Amino acid sequence: MKQYRPLIFKTIGLILILFLTACAANQTATDPLPSWTDGASKQQIFDFVASVTNSDGSNFVPSNKRIATFDNDGTLWSEKPTYFQLLFITDRIRSMAADHPDWKTTQPFQAVLENDMETIKAAGEHGLIKLTMATHAGMTTEEFETIVNEWLATARHPSTGQAYNSMVFQPMLELLDYLRANDFKVFIVSGGSLEFMRPWTEAVYGIPPDQVVGSSFETRYELRDDKPVLVRLPELHFNNDKVTKPVAINRFIGQRPIFAAGNSDGDFEMLKWATSGEGERLGILVHHTDADREWAYDRESSEGRLVRGLDQADENGWLVVDMARDWQVIYPYQSVE
Amino acid sequence: MKQYRPLIFKTIGLILILFLTACAANQTATDPLPSWTDGASKQQIFDFVASVTNSDGSNFVPSNKRIATFDNDGTLWSEKPTYFQLLFITDRIRSMAADHPDWKTTQPFQAVLENDMETIKAAGEHGLIKLTMATHAGMTTEEFETIVNEWLATARHPSTGQAYNSMVFQPMLELLDYLRANDFKVFIVSGGSLEFMRPWTEAVYGIPPDQVVGSSFETRYELRDDKPVLVRLPELHFNNDKVTKPVAINRFIGQRPIFAAGNSDGDFEMLKWATSGEGERLGILVHHTDADREWAYDRESSEGRLVRGLDQADENGWLVVDMARDWQVIYPYQSVE
Repeated sequence: MKQYRPLIFKTIGLILILFLTACAANQTATDPLPSWTDGASKQQIFDFVASVTNSDGSNFVPSNKRIATFDNDGTLWSEKPTYFQLLFITDRIRSMAADHPDWKTTQPFQAVLENDMETIKAAGEHGLIKLTMATHAGMTTEEFETIVNEWLATARHPSTGQAYNSMVFQPMLELLDYLRANDFKVFIVSGGSLEFMRPWTEAVYGIPPDQVVGSSFETRYELRDDKPVLVRLPELHFNNDKVTKPVAINRFIGQRPIFAAGNSDGDFEMLKWATSGEGERLGILVHHTDADREWAYDRESSEGRLVRGLDQADENGWLVVDMARDWQVIYPYQSVE
Repeated sequence: MKQYRPLIFKTIGLILILFLTACAANQTATDPLPSWTDGASKQQIFDFVASVTNSDGSNFVPSNKRIATFDNDGTLWSEKPTYFQLLFITDRIRSMAADHPDWKTTQPFQAVLENDMETIKAAGEHGLIKLTMATHAGMTTEEFETIVNEWLATARHPSTGQAYNSMVFQPMLELLDYLRANDFKVFIVSGGSLEFMRPWTEAVYGIPPDQVVGSSFETRYELRDDKPVLVRLPELHFNNDKVTKPVAINRFIGQRPIFAAGNSDGDFEMLKWATSGEGERLGILVHHTDADREWAYDRESSEGRLVRGLDQADENGWLVVDMARDWQVIYPYQSVE
């Protein structure tokens, strides 16, 4: 029997090759980015991927070095009227208020309870930290995960009425899939906090918890009835924004990305870091230009402020995606024409 | 043509199933852990993997939750006469000494130059930090990677004469492969520093840089001639040891492992964290019992000190691997009988 094996394997191998060729031919026929308008932006993405995956070309990148990083707020999902994590915080403050009667007369808690978003924003980073610590610390990591999941299951966006994690960008979901189909390893690198994202990124983006990089809190290992828990402490461990994004990429991922996508000046250094390496690179900035279907904002916005990115995209060779022009669909719950 | 496709696909599908079944049958016949002695330890590993991968069983764990964490020093490679990273440090001090004439009369540098390992160890953590900062900071991340690679290519272990990253444990390489073949995602969680491990863990262990968790230094993003670099600063960012290993696991991996392997009390909390979750879990302690082929040490050792682990392994249900009894081969460069 044994001497026939190689022939059998060769035959099966040949059939496999034919099968895979058929699959590949089939894939070429299907547009992997159907929600992207045919045009220069989409073509630039195709050209980049074709270039780094062509093993005969001078720009070939082996699959274990195909690292792609995506910002989250404003890049993979919306961030208006304000960052969804801030809306989570204000919802939490309201639901915890009964146990904290002093909040009625203490800022910035009072502003939250009175739905006074201007005062909340005016309280600045200091106020935000107070609100964040009151809602993100003092429980175990598992308890916090439950809180996030319950909020996502019930909270609805004030203007669309949708669940927050339905308001992700269909074109970016397709881009994530397209990169993965070409053996990229895809990471989130967000200013949002790790444990606000990880409960849902795998289901929504296909990005597992260990491929999510973000801001983080200090935690403490403790035994409770001989069972270990991690307690979340009211102390920021790492703020992942601007110049610290490359620092976090290096610490968590350990390789320089060859692709990075963002939408604000908070992503400037990440794109700079990714696109300054040797060989072919792609940096993408999502420009929010669609007041009808999403929001239109850039230089003056308190969320996703984009000034340096717009001014220096050309000289850095970055692709500025014009949402109104380049995206035929915004959210998955809207149908493709 | 099109109407024949389904039939063709069915036929190919059937052949594929036969082919895969043949492969699976072939694998069952081949021992995935050939360097492990047949016996209770090996069987316990097989039973655990069979249990969590059996989709009909009550202990089934879906593949995206099959997280395994391994300590490095003393678990995946040797750590005698002292931690290999400390030997890297002392080699670096010697090769940098010409530019630092004051080191001849300044401790602990003087002790290194005089090869006085006792004084180095006696200088304790404070002395070690001085030596570490002098050798691990002040360069870019890329420069440091080159330094590590050059050292590994040329340095040889004082007693075996082997390259340090040849002194990895063959049985553990097999265990890493076996877990991966069963769809585990495998991570290193080590007290060693990230950038001392990442240049070689993928080639040696098959573990990519982003699946290496370790101690880390502060780094700073800087532009040099408009090119970004990350500069390593003489400041520890995170010391990954004992109670902070679960903290790092949570921060980097974001899921609780169902499998953890270590060899010292520095791994105690990692094993406790991994094995205290719901469902079937496995914690392994490698016990260094082989003075002939490797080293024998536990309670009194300054490297890999193991006291609590030995005392509490039974009550925690941890498997203590007896290196002399359970491992037929230690290093890959030794042949299997």
